[in-house]
Order: sequence, then structure tokens, then C-alpha cells
Amino acid sequence: MAKKEIATFEELQETLNRLNNPGALLVAGKEKSNPMTIGWGSVGIIWGRPIFAVLVRPSRFTHGLMESWPEFTVNIPSLEMDKIVNFCGTKSGRDVDKIAECKLTLEPGHKIEVPSLAECPIHYECRIVHKNNVIPSELINEITSEFYPSGDFHTVYFGEILGVYRNK
Amino acid sequence: MAKKEIATFEELQETLNRLNNPGALLVAGKEKSNPMTIGWGSVGIIWGRPIFAVLVRPSRFTHGLMESWPEFTVNIPSLEMDKIVNFCGTKSGRDVDKIAECKLTLEPGHKIEVPSLAECPIHYECRIVHKNNVIPSELINEITSEFYPSGDFHTVYFGEILGVYRNK
Repeated sequence: MAKKEIATFEELQETLNRLNNPGALLVAGKEKSNPMTIGWGSVGIIWGRPIFAVLVRPSRFTHGLMESWPEFTVNIPSLEMDKIVNFCGTKSGRDVDKIAECKLTLEPGHKIEVPSLAECPIHYECRIVHKNNVIPSELINEITSEFYPSGDFHTVYFGEILGVYRNK
Repeated sequence: MAKKEIATFEELQETLNRLNNPGALLVAGKEKSNPMTIGWGSVGIIWGRPIFAVLVRPSRFTHGLMESWPEFTVNIPSLEMDKIVNFCGTKSGRDVDKIAECKLTLEPGHKIEVPSLAECPIHYECRIVHKNNVIPSELINEITSEFYPSGDFHTVYFGEILGVYRNK
């Protein structure tokens, strides 16, 4: 189903709800694109621009893809896509072709070179304008124990939102 | 007017709209609290927690306050408060008592030691769980030229949202 461009923050509430359950699909990589499930993310205005910030651990296959091409899409699934979201959150793109396995359809980006997922009713197209890191010494202890028992502290990618699209 | 606790993301749209125009008021400091106008910020879910991320330049009076006590409130003004927001964005708490000058009323936090502004219809109470920095070498050039001609790169404070309150 073709999508239509909407206002940047129009589906913010739905976006955060789906991020929380079942998760969103972060697609990175220009030549060979791969979806990774994310349950975290942040949306706002920074440097006078709408920004979608996503976090990726250095060990992840997606980290290499984000480093290889500075664009990504965040795809917001429907609740019915929970099995796909779960699959994409437990398998690595190093081992399986998640697009093929999940029978997902890549659609060319409108404003960027990274594709989106046709099956997701909403998607964001972003270009990376900044990245920094989660700094171990600046985290409260309970977060460090809960999420970083073996290090692998996230890189934070700040993506300028160039377009948001929703199913017609 | 007394406020009532609401769901964390209930006023997200209004929050980003006001952040964009006329701006929001970041209150920091436990003993002597000071409001600073912010036009940037980001709201989302990170480390399984609702997070309000705010950016403060090291040169700002508020930076010292954020370092002195790890909590803050983000106060969402009405459009009619634009003169106050403008005043708090052009004066420094080093030189003037903005609370007194603007006849603002500090209200004790419900869950934190930093107060909120009674005149703002919505406010967020946050505790800082992480901070990192905008890294010069990782910014695209157009942002560096536009916002950092003389350095003073922002610190990014990640505040866990402990409560959101709205006028009854």
C-alpha cells in the first residue's frame, strides 16, 4: 500500500506506543539493508531540526550498517506484526536474511537511499547529523547493572527527520 | 492552580509544539532555582524508562545548577507567556532573579527537590540518569557553523520522567 507524507509529529503518540509494544524496526544500510528491532528511541527538536535519536550497541550488525551509510528509517509496525518484530529482535542480520525470512517488502526511500518496510503503516526517513556515546561513568548504577553487565555501551545516533509517511 | 498527575506521554504533542513556540522553561537548582528557556529537547523511551533529554551549554548559569543537583523540571508555558519565556531566554540567572522579575511562583516538586512553575499549565519532573556531550568531530558541518561558531558544545542531560502534571 502506498504511503503519503504527513506532518513530522503527527504520529508521535502512536510511534512511542508502538516503540514500547511490540517495538519498532530500524532499517539501516544502503546496498544490503537490514531491520533491527528497537524498543528505545527519542523524538524531539534539536539544532532547530526534528530529530529521531536511536541507540545501537557496537556489537550489533546494524552498527556497522549505520557506520557505512549515514541514513536510516524507523518503521512503525502494527500490533499484528508482533511475530516479525520479535524475530527481527532475536536474530542477527549476520546470520539470516530477515527481509526474506519475514517476507518483508523493501520500498525505496522518498528522500534517502535507505529503504523502508512496506508492511509498516508509518515510517520515518532520517539522515544522521550527529552521534555520541553512552558514557559508563555518567550512568546511574541501576542502569549500568541492568543493561550493561558486559559493557557494549550504546552509540546514540541523532537522525534529522526528513520525512514521515503513513498508509493512505 | 493546582495540578494533577497525568500519563507520561499524554501531552507530548502540546509539549513539542510549545517547545517550538514560544519555548519551554527548564528549572534547575535545589536551593536557588532558576528558569532557563529551551527551544530544544527530546522525549522518548531509553533504558526502559521515559526520558526527557535537554541540552545545556557549559557557559550557562543553568549548567552549574544541573551539576549541583541531579534533578530538573521542564515547564510548558501557555502561548500567552511568550514575554516571560523571552525574558528567561535572554537574561542570565547570574545577573537577575528571573523568578522575582517575572513574578513567577515556585511550587515544590511532587517527586523531586526541584520546584516547578505554577503559572505553566504542564510540567515534567525529572531526575538525571545520564549525561554526555555533543562531540564536535561527529557533527555535520552545517550544524557546527550555525550553532557552534565559538564552541561551547552542549551537554546532553537525560532525565528520567518521574511525573507529568497538568492544570486541573
